[in-house]
Parts: sequence; structure tokens; C-alpha cells
Amino acid sequence: MTTAPHLGEFERIARFFAPLAAPQALGLVDDVALIDGPPGEQYVLKTDAIVEGVDYFPGDPPGQIAQKLLRVNLSDLAAKGATPLGYLLTTILPKSCDETWLEAFAAGLAADQATYGIGLLGGDSSATPGPATLSVTAIGRVATGKAVLRGGAKPGDLIYVSGTIGDATLGLAALKGEIEGLEPAARDFLVDRYHLPQPRLALGQKLVGLAHAAIDISDGLIADLGHLCGASRLGASLRAEDVPLSPAARAALEASKKSRTMLFSGGDDYELLFTAPPNLAYKIEAAMRAAGVTVTRIGEMEAGHGVKLLDAQGEPIPIDRAGYSHF
Amino acid sequence: MTTAPHLGEFERIARFFAPLAAPQALGLVDDVALIDGPPGEQYVLKTDAIVEGVDYFPGDPPGQIAQKLLRVNLSDLAAKGATPLGYLLTTILPKSCDETWLEAFAAGLAADQATYGIGLLGGDSSATPGPATLSVTAIGRVATGKAVLRGGAKPGDLIYVSGTIGDATLGLAALKGEIEGLEPAARDFLVDRYHLPQPRLALGQKLVGLAHAAIDISDGLIADLGHLCGASRLGASLRAEDVPLSPAARAALEASKKSRTMLFSGGDDYELLFTAPPNLAYKIEAAMRAAGVTVTRIGEMEAGHGVKLLDAQGEPIPIDRAGYSHF
Repeated sequence: MTTAPHLGEFERIARFFAPLAAPQALGLVDDVALIDGPPGEQYVLKTDAIVEGVDYFPGDPPGQIAQKLLRVNLSDLAAKGATPLGYLLTTILPKSCDETWLEAFAAGLAADQATYGIGLLGGDSSATPGPATLSVTAIGRVATGKAVLRGGAKPGDLIYVSGTIGDATLGLAALKGEIEGLEPAARDFLVDRYHLPQPRLALGQKLVGLAHAAIDISDGLIADLGHLCGASRLGASLRAEDVPLSPAARAALEASKKSRTMLFSGGDDYELLFTAPPNLAYKIEAAMRAAGVTVTRIGEMEAGHGVKLLDAQGEPIPIDRAGYSHF
Repeated sequence: MTTAPHLGEFERIARFFAPLAAPQALGLVDDVALIDGPPGEQYVLKTDAIVEGVDYFPGDPPGQIAQKLLRVNLSDLAAKGATPLGYLLTTILPKSCDETWLEAFAAGLAADQATYGIGLLGGDSSATPGPATLSVTAIGRVATGKAVLRGGAKPGDLIYVSGTIGDATLGLAALKGEIEGLEPAARDFLVDRYHLPQPRLALGQKLVGLAHAAIDISDGLIADLGHLCGASRLGASLRAEDVPLSPAARAALEASKKSRTMLFSGGDDYELLFTAPPNLAYKIEAAMRAAGVTVTRIGEMEAGHGVKLLDAQGEPIPIDRAGYSHF
């Protein structure tokens, strides 16, 4: 999991790892590889790791840690329109993760295996003197040539986002004690959104053949839209007022005096961000209804490069290179 | 990498992870999964991780660390008779692994990619306050139904091992200063064998259709033969005097007064251990010559369970449950 989206990370990948990439790795631009499967199918391969004390709190329930680990990987498969098949799991554990911990961790995996119709394909276990380090390689299936990639957006495409943005950022802030006076139900909703991503698999599958480009939002709305723009060699206009917020997020912003736009730089949304041509708008709505998840138009793709964040008057809101907006 | 083969590890897998296994995971007995590939092919999936200070020394050259990481995974593919296709790489790094470190690490990967004809398929990078933790998921191809598994041995099969046993154990002992008076060339050979496994891919591929069962030796000769016996529901007799040792290993045993049989409990050999019926002995020899690696008969499979280690007179040498021989 890329917890701290910073340029250094992407520069390191470009400099050291991109030259090593196989053709199936799509230049490492899409965070997945596509390899040939049985006739008519390709496999989508994705790997993502989480580290105790970096990506989750040491005392978090083990079952919830297991599910977050699985779901951050499934979220990438969702963005491609893939159907998950299974996963390999690496658990590098300190002595503090005893059998009680492992039992709860495995129970979390079992529950999500049932939810998502996947199975464990293999793995590795080892000991560490450091923090627990957990890694998953997830494998999904998609019709050959139909995976929705980051680089397919066209000028004039509408930009959509699923669900609501910023809940996880606010949930983490609430856990850190940065938000006071929030109703317990709202707080619980936000914390749950931080702890347990909901990979938008059904929606992603419905978008195959409709969306020109898609990405899952893990680094933050602006940063991930920036990745989609970079891969598509286009720019994007994003209307700040149109970005969908949950009632709990609105309440938390009110309570904490935090700004709406700071949510666009937070991570861990695990919603789908995608583009489609305007003439498919009604089909996108049908896909949304079929998948049972809301989808909101938040901007347009255009010639140029980078993300322009616009206020209600259509005036630009400054964004720094790391995706933080200045308001 | 299972650095310390102890029962706890296998009990944990059996108790917590085996119930989660998908059918393609082969009950987690083979340390790989097989999924359907393009017509006539299956993919072999394997994941293995290494931890700084546990599986390698913090000051080891980064390129060598990279190659060990790749090769311990390729060694498992070799045991199945697979041809490697590519790998996903997860690097969880402390701040001490700077760009100089990464450059050398990537150069090691690049060299091995050329050696083994593989490419990088994807990966994840993250930061850790703990030791560097590096994980690879390797993918290979094998003809459908032809992968050589651990559970296929038959009573009366001859047991073979490739290369020589114990070099890595002695190389590690030499690095720890436990062996004195060894010629520099012999010491270098043993240390190199510890640092850089040679996955026996060519041999493994030649064994498809010949070997009944195979495993790569990572936990130690006796322990891994035990795994093969367990998967095949058979026992094995192993003749201690027939286990092939390198000249450097013989010299190191002489210099250190260590016993020959302790080498059978050491790990990191990354040789292939396999079984085949006696009537294929000449074909095994032909495979050995074609692959350019020596292969030595060291015992036979038989009814029963567990590994019997025999001395030159055919008398049993006691072995404890963890695979350590008492001599």
C-alpha cells in the first residue's frame, strides 16, 4: 500500500524498476500485470503490502487487518473490471502475533473469501524482529483485451467517482483524536470506512466496455486522477463542489473546521475513479444501479496535463505537486 | 523463505491456512499453486520472502540480495519442471536503503532477468521502521498436468539429488567464523553457494515426464525429503555415505571437525531432490547430461513413513523430529 504518496516513490519506480518491466507489466503504469489465461481471458496480477504501525495500528483487530490487506488488492482488480480468483499471502510476523492473533487473522480471511468468492492459492510465513509485514498477490480474470486501463481516457470524457470521498481520511483523523464533538454514529461510519475498504468489484465489472479509463483511489483523489491523466497524456478539470461527501464527512468537516478540499489529498478511499464519453452517461447510470453503488460526475478530461481543481465559480484552486490543495 | 524449519511453522499452516486453500493450491502441500493458462499450459505460482538480519546480513551487497530473493523462488519453479515467465516484487525498505542501495539491487535483478529470461510484472514499494523485507511472487509455465509434484513418489522409486549438499550451510558457518584454516578458494566457493543459489531449472524441465515427485531443498535434505515422503504417504531410506559433497565441503568438514550428517539438516541448498522408478535410471542420466548438472542416487522410497538415515553398514543413524541427525 502506498501510504505516503510522494514523488520520491514514483521517481524510484520510474528510475529503478520501470526498466526491468516485462511487456505484460504495462510499463508499471497500471499497478497490475496482464498475462494470457485460458482462451478469451487474461489474468490480472496485483501485489500490495501493509506494515504494522505504518498502514495500520498495532492493536487493530487481526481479522480487520486481514480484510484490509485483501481488499486493497481487490480494489485494484475492481478498477480493471476483473473478477477475483484468488490470492497468495505472505505473513512476516513478530513473536507478538501468537496463535490467538493468527486465528482471528485467518477468520477475517475466511469471511472475505466467502464474500468475494476467492481462495488462498499459496503463501509464505516467516519471522521478523520488526513490525508485522503482510503482503498479498491477488489474481483476477478479465476478458482478453477488455481490462480497463489508466491510459485510455479521451479528451471530453466525463470523470466519475463511485461512493463518497474523504471518509477514510476523516476516520483516521477521528482515531487520532483530531475531530471532537462528532456524533458516535458518524464517527463509527468514518472509522469503519478507514478500516474496511469496499472494493467496487461489481461496478468495475459493469464498466468493462463503457469506461475508457479507471483507477482505484488509494493515494487520494487528486493524486490518482493525476496518475490517470499521466497515463492518458491528458489533463483534467475537477469541480470541488461536485465531489460527493457522505453526511458523516460533512458533519466531521463542520466539527473539525477542516476544509473540504483537504479530503481530496487524503488516501484510503478505495473508490473507483473512471472516465467515459458523454454519450454513455445513461449506460453509466444503468451500471451504477446494477452494481448498487452511487456514481457521481466530478469533472472532464481535456487536452493538456495535470489536474485543475475548480471552485464553485469555476476559478482554479491551487494544488501543489504532491496533490495537496491550498485553500 | 522458511529459514528455521520447525514444526510450529507447519502446524500453523495446517491449522490456520490449509482450511482457506483454493483447489488450485494443492492443499498447500506443494508450496505452489497451479492455475489454468493458455491451451495446454498451466501457470505455477510461488511466493517467498526474505528479511534483513534473518535471511541475509544487513551489509550484504544489494545485488546479491536481489538475486537470492529471485532464485529461491525460481528454485521452487524448477522443482515443478516449470519455465519461469516473470515475477512481482515487493520491497519494504528502511530509510537506510537509499538510492545507491536500490540501484545495486535493481542491477542484480536486471542481471538475473537476463540469465533466466524473465521480466518484472509488477510490485509494491513501501517504507518500514523495521528491517528490509523483500518478497517475490514468481510465475512459471508448465504443460497441463505435467508439473512434478511432491506427492507422486512410488515405493521402489530411486531418490536422486542434484549438485552437492551442505555447501551453503558451511558457507554460512564460514561467514560466522566457525571454520578456520580453510583454503581461500574453498571458503569462497562455499560462501558463494550460500549467497547465490543456482535454481536447477534446466534439470527440472528435463525431469518432466520422468520424475514421479520432486522438491527443492531449502529447509535441509532430511526435512525436505520428509516433506516429499509426507506428501507421497511413503517412507524413504537415505544412505548418508552416498550424499554428494563438494571438495570444498569435504575440506571444511575436515578443518572444522563438523560431522557430515549435520549438513543434511542445514538449509539453503536449493538443489533438486526427486524420485524416479529404477527403469528410468538411464533417462535420468541423459537428463542430467543435457542439463549440465550432476545427479546422484542417495536412497529409495519405501512403504511406511518418515526418513531413515543409514550409515555405510546400513545401520540407522538417529534423527530427531526436526530433521537433525544424532551421530
